[in-house]
Amino acid sequence: MPRPPETVGYQFNHTMMRIKDPKRSIQFYTEVLGMDFISEAKFESFTLYFFAYDHSGGALTAREKKNSRFNREGVLELTHNHGTENDPDFQGYASGNTEPGKGFGHIAITVPDVAAACERFERLGVPFKKRLQDGTMKHIAFLLDPDGYWIEVVPPKIKLTADDDD
Amino acid sequence: MPRPPETVGYQFNHTMMRIKDPKRSIQFYTEVLGMDFISEAKFESFTLYFFAYDHSGGALTAREKKNSRFNREGVLELTHNHGTENDPDFQGYASGNTEPGKGFGHIAITVPDVAAACERFERLGVPFKKRLQDGTMKHIAFLLDPDGYWIEVVPPKIKLTADDDD
Repeated sequence: MPRPPETVGYQFNHTMMRIKDPKRSIQFYTEVLGMDFISEAKFESFTLYFFAYDHSGGALTAREKKNSRFNREGVLELTHNHGTENDPDFQGYASGNTEPGKGFGHIAITVPDVAAACERFERLGVPFKKRLQDGTMKHIAFLLDPDGYWIEVVPPKIKLTADDDD
Repeated sequence: MPRPPETVGYQFNHTMMRIKDPKRSIQFYTEVLGMDFISEAKFESFTLYFFAYDHSGGALTAREKKNSRFNREGVLELTHNHGTENDPDFQGYASGNTEPGKGFGHIAITVPDVAAACERFERLGVPFKKRLQDGTMKHIAFLLDPDGYWIEVVPPKIKLTADDDD
């Protein structure tokens, strides 16, 4: 069916996940996955951290990045509830992939060369949920982020079923 | 820090959530939220459905859409495990926002006019987690999708804290 005209201009802006420790998560998403740290918003009991891939080649100013936070697609919002990083009783967050709490599955990043990317992730010590050689899907991998969320690593083009394009 | 050169070309491609009933979810994401149904991939025990906003003004062919599935940002992947839609014992999926299973928070869509969008969602009978007038954040709303996942509705520019740009 045609797109409802009232929805013109809508964007799938962001995905939010809670994190235990911003220090390790910021390092992971910027230094390992290469996302750009766009901005943070600090509140009394929590802080929001925003990330997105910089497709401008570094041309955006800090202000432009910050203003792009709700005006583009592919943004990741990480919520840190203050204190979890030092709380010995904090149990950690659910990944969404095991009971109870199953529902959310994963986020995914597209990379130009999955094998090269996975070699680098191995060198950097990133834990894998599924290496390329595991299971039947040999062209995709799953990493675990610092909180145990699954991150799928996919090539730009992928054949999922027999009726897919080559 | 500068972006690691090995990550050039990376994209935040998609977010995956499990759904109980594809019929109601496809209707919601296309007819209510206005996403474009890009493709599906059917396997023996589950089917994957892919959605994304069409920013081409309808210029893409079905094949181009399908090929864009892993080669753009802002894609939503919904996973249907066959049979849940008719299983009286199926308990439903966790939204990620209550214990146990807390971790994942929400997805968010940016809309040009939040008030107008929310009026339309009300008319269409979409359940709200938070209406514009609820709470302290008067410029954002939260919808509930058919599985109870939270969907934030945000304007393109938003002031989160005192140090944010106007």
